[in-house]
Amino acid sequence: MTSPARPADQLRDIQIELGYIPSNPASVLYRCEGTIVLCTASLEASVPPWLAGRGKGWVTAEYSMLPGSTQPRKQRDRGGKIDGRTTEIQRLIGRSLRAVVDLVALGERSITVDCDVIQADGGTRTASITGGFIALAKAIEIAVPGSRIGDGPIRDSIAAISTGIVNDVAHLDLDYKLDVAADVDMNVVVTGAGKFVEIQGTGEEATFDDDQLAELLRLAKKGIRELTHKQLEALA
Amino acid sequence: MTSPARPADQLRDIQIELGYIPSNPASVLYRCEGTIVLCTASLEASVPPWLAGRGKGWVTAEYSMLPGSTQPRKQRDRGGKIDGRTTEIQRLIGRSLRAVVDLVALGERSITVDCDVIQADGGTRTASITGGFIALAKAIEIAVPGSRIGDGPIRDSIAAISTGIVNDVAHLDLDYKLDVAADVDMNVVVTGAGKFVEIQGTGEEATFDDDQLAELLRLAKKGIRELTHKQLEALA
Amino acid sequence: MTSPARPADQLRDIQIELGYIPSNPASVLYRCEGTIVLCTASLEASVPPWLAGRGKGWVTAEYSMLPGSTQPRKQRDRGGKIDGRTTEIQRLIGRSLRAVVDLVALGERSITVDCDVIQADGGTRTASITGGFIALAKAIEIAVPGSRIGDGPIRDSIAAISTGIVNDVAHLDLDYKLDVAADVDMNVVVTGAGKFVEIQGTGEEATFDDDQLAELLRLAKKGIRELTHKQLEALA
Amino acid sequence: MTSPARPADQLRDIQIELGYIPSNPASVLYRCEGTIVLCTASLEASVPPWLAGRGKGWVTAEYSMLPGSTQPRKQRDRGGKIDGRTTEIQRLIGRSLRAVVDLVALGERSITVDCDVIQADGGTRTASITGGFIALAKAIEIAVPGSRIGDGPIRDSIAAISTGIVNDVAHLDLDYKLDVAADVDMNVVVTGAGKFVEIQGTGEEATFDDDQLAELLRLAKKGIRELTHKQLEALA
Amino acid sequence: MTSPARPADQLRDIQIELGYIPSNPASVLYRCEGTIVLCTASLEASVPPWLAGRGKGWVTAEYSMLPGSTQPRKQRDRGGKIDGRTTEIQRLIGRSLRAVVDLVALGERSITVDCDVIQADGGTRTASITGGFIALAKAIEIAVPGSRIGDGPIRDSIAAISTGIVNDVAHLDLDYKLDVAADVDMNVVVTGAGKFVEIQGTGEEATFDDDQLAELLRLAKKGIRELTHKQLEALA
Amino acid sequence: MTSPARPADQLRDIQIELGYIPSNPASVLYRCEGTIVLCTASLEASVPPWLAGRGKGWVTAEYSMLPGSTQPRKQRDRGGKIDGRTTEIQRLIGRSLRAVVDLVALGERSITVDCDVIQADGGTRTASITGGFIALAKAIEIAVPGSRIGDGPIRDSIAAISTGIVNDVAHLDLDYKLDVAADVDMNVVVTGAGKFVEIQGTGEEATFDDDQLAELLRLAKKGIRELTHKQLEALA
Repeated sequence: MTSPARPADQLRDIQIELGYIPSNPASVLYRCEGTIVLCTASLEASVPPWLAGRGKGWVTAEYSMLPGSTQPRKQRDRGGKIDGRTTEIQRLIGRSLRAVVDLVALGERSITVDCDVIQADGGTRTASITGGFIALAKAIEIAVPGSRIGDGPIRDSIAAISTGIVNDVAHLDLDYKLDVAADVDMNVVVTGAGKFVEIQGTGEEATFDDDQLAELLRLAKKGIRELTHKQLEALA
Repeated sequence: MTSPARPADQLRDIQIELGYIPSNPASVLYRCEGTIVLCTASLEASVPPWLAGRGKGWVTAEYSMLPGSTQPRKQRDRGGKIDGRTTEIQRLIGRSLRAVVDLVALGERSITVDCDVIQADGGTRTASITGGFIALAKAIEIAVPGSRIGDGPIRDSIAAISTGIVNDVAHLDLDYKLDVAADVDMNVVVTGAGKFVEIQGTGEEATFDDDQLAELLRLAKKGIRELTHKQLEALA
Repeated sequence: MTSPARPADQLRDIQIELGYIPSNPASVLYRCEGTIVLCTASLEASVPPWLAGRGKGWVTAEYSMLPGSTQPRKQRDRGGKIDGRTTEIQRLIGRSLRAVVDLVALGERSITVDCDVIQADGGTRTASITGGFIALAKAIEIAVPGSRIGDGPIRDSIAAISTGIVNDVAHLDLDYKLDVAADVDMNVVVTGAGKFVEIQGTGEEATFDDDQLAELLRLAKKGIRELTHKQLEALA
Repeated sequence: MTSPARPADQLRDIQIELGYIPSNPASVLYRCEGTIVLCTASLEASVPPWLAGRGKGWVTAEYSMLPGSTQPRKQRDRGGKIDGRTTEIQRLIGRSLRAVVDLVALGERSITVDCDVIQADGGTRTASITGGFIALAKAIEIAVPGSRIGDGPIRDSIAAISTGIVNDVAHLDLDYKLDVAADVDMNVVVTGAGKFVEIQGTGEEATFDDDQLAELLRLAKKGIRELTHKQLEALA
Repeated sequence: MTSPARPADQLRDIQIELGYIPSNPASVLYRCEGTIVLCTASLEASVPPWLAGRGKGWVTAEYSMLPGSTQPRKQRDRGGKIDGRTTEIQRLIGRSLRAVVDLVALGERSITVDCDVIQADGGTRTASITGGFIALAKAIEIAVPGSRIGDGPIRDSIAAISTGIVNDVAHLDLDYKLDVAADVDMNVVVTGAGKFVEIQGTGEEATFDDDQLAELLRLAKKGIRELTHKQLEALA
Repeated sequence: MTSPARPADQLRDIQIELGYIPSNPASVLYRCEGTIVLCTASLEASVPPWLAGRGKGWVTAEYSMLPGSTQPRKQRDRGGKIDGRTTEIQRLIGRSLRAVVDLVALGERSITVDCDVIQADGGTRTASITGGFIALAKAIEIAVPGSRIGDGPIRDSIAAISTGIVNDVAHLDLDYKLDVAADVDMNVVVTGAGKFVEIQGTGEEATFDDDQLAELLRLAKKGIRELTHKQLEALA
């Protein structure tokens, strides 16, 4: 499922299909080779009770893996208990998207960005942020006619990518095989302007030093620049 | 979203994409115009505890609507409580698929057929049965090499369609607008050999008589013959 | 527990005790030989939030089997998860009862019909509908003095019965032993005027053809006529 | 609903119908005027996992009020959360019944005593203990032929009654009206031999002194002697 | 952990640290040798919805054992199901505290008294009542300046202690070892004025007679007098 | 509650009380001024089912805030739903502690580290890691006599601290007031040898650049060196 000969500093191939669900133009099928995520943005003309009457909007995200997205089949999150990993991921997606939205300019509206993983091959949370931003931007473009990125509720684009250290080599955009083999993995969320919004680096029964950190961040920024370009292209 | 000029006795256009999820050949994207369902069959080499040691297999189904499949957005079934409609539908799908499987011939294996609605425009439960059968048949073809429909664990094909009475006219294959307007609606599940497996007819604050019942069943059987043909084509 | 010599086209003996719970005249102990169901109708002077302010009432049903109603003992539906069968049955009861109620004539009132099975010997869902109608009609008679069936919120009576094919013979009113042996079973809900409200026919790892369907429906209609007579007698 | 002229030291009328559910001889319909409880004992030939292999049996109880047992209607304990009152009551019933059972003599068997309130008019927990004992004793009599109370797994009978202080007068066997008016209420569980098993006395925004306590206990013991007599009569 | 030579009619040593949580003066660390409970009272300027607009306040309690309070470690009450023992205890604490509060004088305020057991060595529920009263009284003293016990929302003090019969000897204040060995155990809640609020006596597979009951109550009253003294000292 | 004049590069005062719960030497009361966390390590001689038979141990953590730890009172995590923040924090604590444990050397044992916040004034998750390590090390020291940090199941010490940017100034060890005011906050987990285990940096509706990142990491490493010293002192 992974691209065998991909150099360590290259992204996987990206394909973005905007308007994938015919009835919702703010729906995106985001593929980076074996990872396929369906991102849809749904807008409501109201805000959650705790935000009511404050002249601000809200953006939130939900993340789920379809049962058929993994082998063996993944059980649904149904028994009243969302697993910890899901909770963490959907909080990260929501926080990242809100970082580039001017909630006051959005007005008293809520947008839910649903990220449903159709096939999982590593990097589903970063794909959800990158693809989810496109759905979100499209939904806002429709809700606030005439707005553009940087001039309206969307202040900048945002994208995310993973990096990691596998056999002492820093890699960009880990697929599942690389992710399993990685001693350190990092998810980085960066704006179109190149500013960090989130850095989550974790040693999996391993540690990392300052030099390794620097190399992981350099790779991430390179990948983000390319993703930003693809996002803007899809939205054009 | 609905095909405006469709005659009352015609099916919607059907498109079947087998192998939609690259990593799982037993995955089907089933479209009947505005209704799009992703059906995947996952096989496990064991059976649920209550069936263990009896030399039989098991087939079950789960049904879910993605949040973006409807407008307004549909909330996820997460709070520990699956709604009654979902429960009814997934029990119907499972029962219908088991009707054509020889569980002894299947051996001690379980197959879960997941039906996830990507876009809902009426008829999602019948689309799930019709598309789910294709995924199931493919999974069994892989698990039991050399088996064919009628000669192996799959005894016959099975498909389902809705009919209903709208403004006193019997219609085949109700889309959402027709479904909302229907006084009576009926879901019919029929084998490739033309035998009934399930009939569920309901008057929605309305009733129906013997003649209307006969017409609804006649239309359903006509539709099923066409669906059966398409199923076999997709599996060929 | 079953009546051994009962002919295939005969109902079981029915006994109806209206006012079984002394404090609630709209309570019915409904017995058809080994199946005993306590049906009570409780009226509230308000409607659920989603119906508020629309000048209409609501009728709903809950179904439960007491732990001692079966052998071995049935576990209570307590762990936050109502089983699928229970959900299906109580939705069917509610839908059937609403089919004969003019919710606008009822006004902004809610009626909950509770059907608690005291002893189960097949046909608990149809007994719940048939007995539940009596409780409902009594509750409405009290709430809307002067109203009668057909002239007031209750438009017609409604009753339900099962039929099935056992060893190739069509039977009326399946008790537990017949139900277990049946290849096909069907629940039919019919109004006093003889119109269908619901038909649910299911082949249990079996199928049925048009002639069998016709015979099952003929038997059901015969049984319903007799049940309707007993309902009206009890309410007189 | 209450017996208006009942003297403060008299029990309500008791009616005990053993074998109320035809298929289970260990079922009891216990009525003390307006309070009606269905008690059934169900035996299993195994014990809970935590007790396995220790040569002892187990007795437990479950308590529930049917929705129609009160006015207004009582909601079912379904949402995954059993209310605190229910929990307390069923623990009390189980503990009380176990107090007179020799669990070693019972052997590796479990008995569940279900107490389902059909109509509630005060004293449902004590009725559940008194009636539940009859069902339990009957179930053990069947399971251990030849055993009798005092000679076999059942060491003694057990019964329970409430007392309370209403307008400074000590009353025996509070119905709902008395219970609501009581400043102090007490539930007392006593064996056939006259020994205490449980005393639960509570001041409801009130207190009580030693003399009042003595009078409440004296009344309770009087009532228990009469209940014991009726229990043995029913089992004879 | 238990004081080995403690005479049967003596309390364990009590230490009370008021203001244990620096930010909340109404917090108490209550120690009776091996049993350590943190009691905090939190005041809100509103009442639960069911009490709104009636000019009365509310006092409630929650009880929990920290995982490290027992050996082996106690699992948290997290899975949506509070165990029956916890429910009973926190209802008892709340009821006991309310017995000495004039809810009308409290006004439309709610106080939650949290009792979290840091180390458990028997008697955690009575320690929670005795310590919880101190936290409650302090919270009310702050909320209603100038009020004192007996003159303001607090009508009297309240304290609780356990007694029990161990090897035929009546003991005061059971630690864990005594509690496990006890045939009968009793929790008694008494006001500063010496009136009973609650008596809960239970034979654990044992029974007790009138003389034993009298001795258990005598010991309890003796213990309560000493506890009352310590409570007033801590609040002074 | 915060130390007003603390320089931006200084830690708060730390107090560590090992053996706080008398019955468990592996219990720690960890205070950094207004933040107080009780950390206890509980050892079991078995592992979770999914790890059984693999010759390895397991370390996990649970985190909870006592209701009285915040003002207004924090509701307990009881309704079957642990909030997302709690889930994230306890996963972080567990992952961080496991980073320095040799699970093979630990053998088939499980250790649960409970972190219960008694008073919250910012930095509860980092305090939980730093204090939790002390409890964990003590538990292992007892379980594996003769082992020391670096020579036995514990490979190194581990500690955590927060940093953040407040009004464009980088601060070490944010208390609640600083945390609320911060535009960027970061939690850093570092071993005694100075290697990173986890970096979590988040812009709260803000972003950060490379220079700011470098300064935040420098401060964190300084703080960790001091914490490591205190940890070793407490364990000495």
